[in-house]
Amino acid sequence: MTHSFEPPVRTLMGPGPSDVSPRVLEAMSRPTIGHLDPAFIELMDEVKRLLQFAFQSENELTMPVSAPGSAGMEACFVNLVERGDTVIVAQNGVFGGRMKENVERCGATPVMVNDEWGNPVDPHKVEEALKDHPEAKLLAFVHAETSTGARSDAAALCSLAQDHDCLSIVDTVTSLGGIEVDVDGWGADAVYSGTQKCLSCAPGLSPVTFSNRARDVISSRKQPVQSWFLDMELVMGYWGEQTQRAYHHTAPVNALYGLHESLIILEEEGLDNAWKRHRRNHLALAAGFEALGLKFAVDPNYRLPQLNSVYLPAGIDDAALRQQLLAEYQLEIGAGLGPLAGKVWRVGLMGFASNEKNVLLCLAALDGTLRQQGAAIDSGQAVAAAQAIYSG
Amino acid sequence: MTHSFEPPVRTLMGPGPSDVSPRVLEAMSRPTIGHLDPAFIELMDEVKRLLQFAFQSENELTMPVSAPGSAGMEACFVNLVERGDTVIVAQNGVFGGRMKENVERCGATPVMVNDEWGNPVDPHKVEEALKDHPEAKLLAFVHAETSTGARSDAAALCSLAQDHDCLSIVDTVTSLGGIEVDVDGWGADAVYSGTQKCLSCAPGLSPVTFSNRARDVISSRKQPVQSWFLDMELVMGYWGEQTQRAYHHTAPVNALYGLHESLIILEEEGLDNAWKRHRRNHLALAAGFEALGLKFAVDPNYRLPQLNSVYLPAGIDDAALRQQLLAEYQLEIGAGLGPLAGKVWRVGLMGFASNEKNVLLCLAALDGTLRQQGAAIDSGQAVAAAQAIYSG
Repeated sequence: MTHSFEPPVRTLMGPGPSDVSPRVLEAMSRPTIGHLDPAFIELMDEVKRLLQFAFQSENELTMPVSAPGSAGMEACFVNLVERGDTVIVAQNGVFGGRMKENVERCGATPVMVNDEWGNPVDPHKVEEALKDHPEAKLLAFVHAETSTGARSDAAALCSLAQDHDCLSIVDTVTSLGGIEVDVDGWGADAVYSGTQKCLSCAPGLSPVTFSNRARDVISSRKQPVQSWFLDMELVMGYWGEQTQRAYHHTAPVNALYGLHESLIILEEEGLDNAWKRHRRNHLALAAGFEALGLKFAVDPNYRLPQLNSVYLPAGIDDAALRQQLLAEYQLEIGAGLGPLAGKVWRVGLMGFASNEKNVLLCLAALDGTLRQQGAAIDSGQAVAAAQAIYSG
Repeated sequence: MTHSFEPPVRTLMGPGPSDVSPRVLEAMSRPTIGHLDPAFIELMDEVKRLLQFAFQSENELTMPVSAPGSAGMEACFVNLVERGDTVIVAQNGVFGGRMKENVERCGATPVMVNDEWGNPVDPHKVEEALKDHPEAKLLAFVHAETSTGARSDAAALCSLAQDHDCLSIVDTVTSLGGIEVDVDGWGADAVYSGTQKCLSCAPGLSPVTFSNRARDVISSRKQPVQSWFLDMELVMGYWGEQTQRAYHHTAPVNALYGLHESLIILEEEGLDNAWKRHRRNHLALAAGFEALGLKFAVDPNYRLPQLNSVYLPAGIDDAALRQQLLAEYQLEIGAGLGPLAGKVWRVGLMGFASNEKNVLLCLAALDGTLRQQGAAIDSGQAVAAAQAIYSG
């Protein structure tokens, strides 16, 4: 017979999932009710309103896709892209590459604008591509690249798209709740996120929001959306305005309890306060990393406070060190991806996990393990440098 | 400020979600760990093994899709169907119609074999269609139609598909755990299910299993799978045999804790015992329905014990009665769908919810509410008839 699974109690400081608030964990364990229960319809309405708050948007088409962030990405592409379209995709990390895959699987042509991993998307290059491809229907880019920790200028990029009569698709999986996301202010058309980063909720849902301009494009498609599950016209029969909700698929009821609770926590703290907290803990961690001699992979102007990519010191075994952190400290930090695999660590300070205790634990643990592996570090300096930021 | 959501404590006797075991609810609230954590990889291996047990299959490609049952359906179609293919779809309820939609959105041609709602799929008609369409690549059908409560003969239909060199896609959303599902015995090629029916888990995941024949078809496709999220070749980089799991999407960690626990419960009870329990509670409910004068929509030979469709008595207001059951007894039963809307109720006895207490509650509540609405029923006879089955 199989035994019940008792997970180890980790501190999650990788690229996500991040530590989930105990309030959210408890909410997910409340009794399941039906997906057409009047009480559940009220919960859905509150989730929509709270997501509008988090996205800073009045978009009516705002709801969580019933699957992880990569399904939210796919929902944006399959609804807006048709066979034969041209889509400009800015790539400066893993997720721009996934966008390219999505465009191709829609039977459309991607025009790639490439930047170095660790750099933000260059608006000048994007502008050139928009000029060179007047047939382009869409510009797609990642606001906060989870694979590198770089922030791109979403306001400037969305504005360029509008200047060239393009719709915009924006990945805010790692940004929502950690830094400013201003969907209506940017004039973004289709924006998706995830629950397991700065919202401190369990993984499994993908909040999305579509502008009225995007809705018009969806409702005037020539071909049906290739995904039945992600077809927004069908999904909105269940999540939409009408009082009588039509069954589309069975909503993940308990996961939505969790998202609802996590958004209440964000509402209680306030967006500005949440962003400030992420910034402050990042500065303390960065001061500690400097004392440890760890160099950031991203320029300070474009660094995400919630995802800190730093180069491994020379001579350190990546996998062995991360394994030691997990075994000795129950601490998870992230490995590099793609060209940065084996070269960087990705240290997350996301949502509930962005707190002083985690910053100090991470620095103390790295201090100890790096010195064990022979790095020339003054013991205790990293923790002291972080504490100086907190008391400063 | 928004308040935390405290769901009413319902008894869920609709078409799903069904009542979730408290053990499963508790499991979902355990601390989240990373989707690449060594402890999580062990959990994934156990979930695969337990799903093989539940499906009665040794298929290596067996895992839960990270989204509800309708995404599991889509995963089967988008991986096996290519543009220009012909697919025979048997329809005897809502979900056969959804299969047709899936075939069309894959750019393939559906050949429909229609049976009356409430009847099983007729193997003779299917055989004719297979003879008439030697170009057909696939036969798709629903084992247990959730919209009507009818069981089709999966063994016979899969055997016909094999005789005509067709692959088979089988919907077992409502059957898995409630009646016999024998994937290897049937020789089925792609089978999907849901967690929120007879597995007594929360909604949100879709167990799938693919035969080696199906895997070969997937790996020799001419065109890429149109969904990146559901592309099984990519998903198996994460769920597959290799020791080094590659990141594809972030798994819904806490939902998988719940599925793991629900499958342990099934393992503890044993498949045979679970099927017998569903059968026994169905017979008691059916005896009670007979005493209430309620007629089944499905012939006894094809009735699903876990989903009981009965015609409304003349003069009864469907919505008002279901609303009264919810308000007075916290009891949810299901409405009819499609041509059966307003004509039948669908009463589920699924998984954890298939128990004597629920049978008696449902009969007592219907007895009271129907008499209030003027039905000529002898008070207490329904409960007595069910009790006679239990003590017989």
